[in-house]
Amino acid sequence: MSLRVAILGAAGYGGSGLLRRLSRHPEVASLRVASRSFEGRPVQDAWPHLAGLASGVGALTFESPDAALQGVDVAFLATPHGATAPWVHAALEAGARVIDLSADSRLDAVTYARWYGEHPHPEDLELARYGLVEFHREELAGAQVVAAPGCNATAVSLALTPFVAAGWVSRERAPVCTVLAAASGAGRTPAQGLHFAELAENAKPYKVAGTHRHLAEIEMTLGRASVEGLTHRTQGEIDAWPVSFTPHLIPGIRGILTSCTFTPSREGSEEDLLEVLHAAYQREALVHVQETLPEMKAVAGTDRALLSVRRDDRTGLVTVFSTIDNLGKGAAGQAVQGFNVAFGFPETTGLELEGQWP
Amino acid sequence: MSLRVAILGAAGYGGSGLLRRLSRHPEVASLRVASRSFEGRPVQDAWPHLAGLASGVGALTFESPDAALQGVDVAFLATPHGATAPWVHAALEAGARVIDLSADSRLDAVTYARWYGEHPHPEDLELARYGLVEFHREELAGAQVVAAPGCNATAVSLALTPFVAAGWVSRERAPVCTVLAAASGAGRTPAQGLHFAELAENAKPYKVAGTHRHLAEIEMTLGRASVEGLTHRTQGEIDAWPVSFTPHLIPGIRGILTSCTFTPSREGSEEDLLEVLHAAYQREALVHVQETLPEMKAVAGTDRALLSVRRDDRTGLVTVFSTIDNLGKGAAGQAVQGFNVAFGFPETTGLELEGQWP
Amino acid sequence: MSLRVAILGAAGYGGSGLLRRLSRHPEVASLRVASRSFEGRPVQDAWPHLAGLASGVGALTFESPDAALQGVDVAFLATPHGATAPWVHAALEAGARVIDLSADSRLDAVTYARWYGEHPHPEDLELARYGLVEFHREELAGAQVVAAPGCNATAVSLALTPFVAAGWVSRERAPVCTVLAAASGAGRTPAQGLHFAELAENAKPYKVAGTHRHLAEIEMTLGRASVEGLTHRTQGEIDAWPVSFTPHLIPGIRGILTSCTFTPSREGSEEDLLEVLHAAYQREALVHVQETLPEMKAVAGTDRALLSVRRDDRTGLVTVFSTIDNLGKGAAGQAVQGFNVAFGFPETTGLELEGQWP
Amino acid sequence: MSLRVAILGAAGYGGSGLLRRLSRHPEVASLRVASRSFEGRPVQDAWPHLAGLASGVGALTFESPDAALQGVDVAFLATPHGATAPWVHAALEAGARVIDLSADSRLDAVTYARWYGEHPHPEDLELARYGLVEFHREELAGAQVVAAPGCNATAVSLALTPFVAAGWVSRERAPVCTVLAAASGAGRTPAQGLHFAELAENAKPYKVAGTHRHLAEIEMTLGRASVEGLTHRTQGEIDAWPVSFTPHLIPGIRGILTSCTFTPSREGSEEDLLEVLHAAYQREALVHVQETLPEMKAVAGTDRALLSVRRDDRTGLVTVFSTIDNLGKGAAGQAVQGFNVAFGFPETTGLELEGQWP
Repeated sequence: MSLRVAILGAAGYGGSGLLRRLSRHPEVASLRVASRSFEGRPVQDAWPHLAGLASGVGALTFESPDAALQGVDVAFLATPHGATAPWVHAALEAGARVIDLSADSRLDAVTYARWYGEHPHPEDLELARYGLVEFHREELAGAQVVAAPGCNATAVSLALTPFVAAGWVSRERAPVCTVLAAASGAGRTPAQGLHFAELAENAKPYKVAGTHRHLAEIEMTLGRASVEGLTHRTQGEIDAWPVSFTPHLIPGIRGILTSCTFTPSREGSEEDLLEVLHAAYQREALVHVQETLPEMKAVAGTDRALLSVRRDDRTGLVTVFSTIDNLGKGAAGQAVQGFNVAFGFPETTGLELEGQWP
Repeated sequence: MSLRVAILGAAGYGGSGLLRRLSRHPEVASLRVASRSFEGRPVQDAWPHLAGLASGVGALTFESPDAALQGVDVAFLATPHGATAPWVHAALEAGARVIDLSADSRLDAVTYARWYGEHPHPEDLELARYGLVEFHREELAGAQVVAAPGCNATAVSLALTPFVAAGWVSRERAPVCTVLAAASGAGRTPAQGLHFAELAENAKPYKVAGTHRHLAEIEMTLGRASVEGLTHRTQGEIDAWPVSFTPHLIPGIRGILTSCTFTPSREGSEEDLLEVLHAAYQREALVHVQETLPEMKAVAGTDRALLSVRRDDRTGLVTVFSTIDNLGKGAAGQAVQGFNVAFGFPETTGLELEGQWP
Repeated sequence: MSLRVAILGAAGYGGSGLLRRLSRHPEVASLRVASRSFEGRPVQDAWPHLAGLASGVGALTFESPDAALQGVDVAFLATPHGATAPWVHAALEAGARVIDLSADSRLDAVTYARWYGEHPHPEDLELARYGLVEFHREELAGAQVVAAPGCNATAVSLALTPFVAAGWVSRERAPVCTVLAAASGAGRTPAQGLHFAELAENAKPYKVAGTHRHLAEIEMTLGRASVEGLTHRTQGEIDAWPVSFTPHLIPGIRGILTSCTFTPSREGSEEDLLEVLHAAYQREALVHVQETLPEMKAVAGTDRALLSVRRDDRTGLVTVFSTIDNLGKGAAGQAVQGFNVAFGFPETTGLELEGQWP
Repeated sequence: MSLRVAILGAAGYGGSGLLRRLSRHPEVASLRVASRSFEGRPVQDAWPHLAGLASGVGALTFESPDAALQGVDVAFLATPHGATAPWVHAALEAGARVIDLSADSRLDAVTYARWYGEHPHPEDLELARYGLVEFHREELAGAQVVAAPGCNATAVSLALTPFVAAGWVSRERAPVCTVLAAASGAGRTPAQGLHFAELAENAKPYKVAGTHRHLAEIEMTLGRASVEGLTHRTQGEIDAWPVSFTPHLIPGIRGILTSCTFTPSREGSEEDLLEVLHAAYQREALVHVQETLPEMKAVAGTDRALLSVRRDDRTGLVTVFSTIDNLGKGAAGQAVQGFNVAFGFPETTGLELEGQWP
């Protein structure tokens, strides 16, 4: 199979990662890139690192989103939350299948409305499959619309799902999750809080106490895991699984590091806890469980996740740690992984497995 | 009163902050500085920012610790944990009162042995008063040895103590505390993990799951607060109050930001929670309670703490936030504050109240 | 004397530094602050580090610029280049003397037009005195309008002026000056290139090859030094002294570091070169000449400059190094220093002489 | 051809880049890695980003250098300057060809002695070919020892060589070169000046005024270019071409940015100058000449160089800009490029052409 592919939002950070992965993807026959602000300009005007590349990606020119959707088999949408649903619709109408990196295909219409406002095309949500691939492979096969999970949701869900699925967490005691998130998670558009002089030598909590919109996904994923276990299949009703979620913005370019602490509802040693993670992820190419505490730099530029777990013998509390690159496993990497599964390609085709250090 | 003062460990980061504050302190008549590695050299060899200063501090020369202790009234010890107890002893024998920034005067001998190893001068601990000034003013008045609390302990204790003292926290449900800590907290000695190329674009948990030594102080402070309330007086036995504590190293020079989440044992709104903090700190010059979430940069270079609190209406959980400069309220500032109280000076004499932005 | 003072542009980085220095200035009886975007809001809404300060500065409220100018004796203008000239005019009409941190009072009308566009009030330029205080003290005394020099111009002029004044530089061989400038020099307004994710792990030249507007000031100052020596007096015509100027943006919050390399037109050793600097600055409180190469952090948060010089015995070329805080000696500190001289106060009143490390 | 390859110094930053490139290199049949400090431990103990990789590189174990050299065809030496010459000798004796990333094979014995001390195996220098590949392809073919140039030397030589070769630079007027260098250039060993708290928010010149050892290479390369043009062949005597060189350490992980300013000895417009660069590099896969000023982040993680040039019409001076990743084109990438040429493989085999942004 050899596909014609378009990327919308190709001048944003999600788009950058997609360009890299899809331009090397052996099943992608042609690639079109769209950006309203860079329409008509060469790709290197948005991406200085692509200047002068002899390879195909360096020769691309941004089109309008409408133009880019014409005649493609697949559309990757790296456009903003709230503005993407119309492009999902347009892409489907143009006969393309969709990989949606925004939040607009992740939730049912009722939940979506609660966090983001009314969904303009609720009928399209019927076609969408949430794609945290490690848990949703079955659903994703053949999906018309793949909804790539949010970066924070991915990091937290990878950490907690195995324990919820295996019955180690009690619904009565919400796990306490802290996230350290680097600046690119907020997108490429300049903002006061992202100014180097404001963010360097700083760290700040934001959208705490149940106000961050990725909570909806996390609680949906954990809710399903509590009923269905690790492997999810579509089903009607899900009881959200409550989580306490405290994100912090830290001075970094890329990366998410989470620590999730919960009161175990079972007895078990640290070895038992590690075994829960190992059992969940032993066949996963992108998730590595290790004894060493994970550090953010180890996944920079990659599509992998590193996980570990500790038990505090004094309090009995368990803390699970995970780290991903918010632009890799948290965005473009996850989207391409979902694309691969939806189309039946080997799952890690085009992905980044090995980073660089330092 | 006009005092002769010595600083040991004056070429380390704790020493830097003491130099600044004590050289401007109106009750300090003379200042001697000691450093083994810089002995005999001018202060600017260790501190490039003091080069060429016409003021007194620029003209100082490092002495040996032994020499510096001769004929002083007060010794500030900014020397390493485990190596400071002998200097406490020497200073006391030389007739000086002591402000100890290390951990060596903070705990009773039994607790100290559990976390740091056997204490070489347990008899000196009788003279020591733990000095998180906001809670220990009465004890500190006239103290022979003031033990300045650890930076993490300060940030967490300021956040939780009012709620423990007011009965909002249950001993059965340990608060889950996360700390984001900048690099200077690890001291000035080079180390692999502090190398710019290793720490920039990184973040990593360390000493998690009950293994960080500042826990001993936190649990002592909260234990006392649960019995005595906010204002502490010396007493024999303390039941430690269990806390889950997860520190992370982040790429910053100075600063600590904490978030502590607990299940409230009482009903109450966010306003009620803010009121608990306001009530505890309304007369405090160095602690500011605000509705806005605190950010680390706002206290950089200062001796202040900023606090806020949020209630997650979905889960009922409460999260308290605090931020301090680990070298300010977390070290030199706190030490000078304790010194002021011990000697009966106005509490903020010599302290930094106003930082710079950006 | 006790003055009523206003700061326009008080929500920008220049304003932040002025707030700090003027709120502590013993000759400032009252302080008003203006910002269009924060009009009517408390000062801490723009400046999180001032939240909860019991001192006067924490209690200020932003006014409109028009309101703030009423009834004041002095107006500090920290508003943008090109938009400040009308405020200079308005302040003069309101009876206030002016300290202008923008470029709008620095040049004669012809030179200004070449770099910034037509000046709207050329008549006001007659009242303005350029205030790189170390060279212009005589002119500044009693000035109606003090023009605080640009940050790059200050760093380069401090490095080169003594050598031009002493005849070490030939007009035929332009010194080659490189500047490393941190992000705050670009102001507080968000911009793509200042986004943390774009500037961290980056460095880039900008406005090179004679296109940076601070060149006009540098070449004016050096031209005058070549005729008048170090101490400047107003005079009609100045031949600009050519300089090659290559600025780079680096990932830092504050700071400027310059290296200026020239072919000496005289013979002389490195000691001779150091002596030129010593002779020029020996009585200066804010300029320190040292043998050690200066580093940027040593002046962070201060109003001082550090200088050194090296001679390459292989090529005979001389390189002078200087570093300042672009927001200190390069902006607010210099403005207050000029204010002090213009009003006859001791020159370092209210200034920052000692920084913090790290 | 299918080679057995060893990397010495594989736990340092040069080694990290070699591991990445050689483990993917199709002509490398087997890979051994050596490190004294990690001997006997798995590769992930030194490199957290390789933890859990199913691919070959993740399964490697560090050996002693002596062991790793046994039975290999090629040895890559990423060991320190001054300590590498004995390993070159040992590798040659063991029958391996050598790619030396250190300075120990770059200079003739006399020049080496002047900058680094006496060379222990001057006879081996006869076998060595300096490998800034763009200029030395002919010499490198079949070389027994390839000397990979220093990172600073690479950046400066790429910028200036075309202009020296084309007669635009006069020997009487040394070009003034400034380098901004990130922290990894100093190696992985912790040091005071590399501590995050010391280097963040800092920038400092070092080894200025003709004292940096990379000068020897730069002046050799330019000297040869002045006689032989762009394409070099071995020859006995070289007159060094004088250059002024001012390096600065800046707070970054990886990257070098240079600006080299010279007085042109010919007339010519900016277009003419760009044409000189285009002519020199039009067929080069790793060097891109562009009108836009290059920025450091655009080459991070890659083996490419970006160049541009500007003419200051006011002074007539020319400034050439170049940027490389000091660990890519400045180290591992250049070494593998030289290896490819020495062995007759396609020149970019195994190299990194496309980075990531941000």
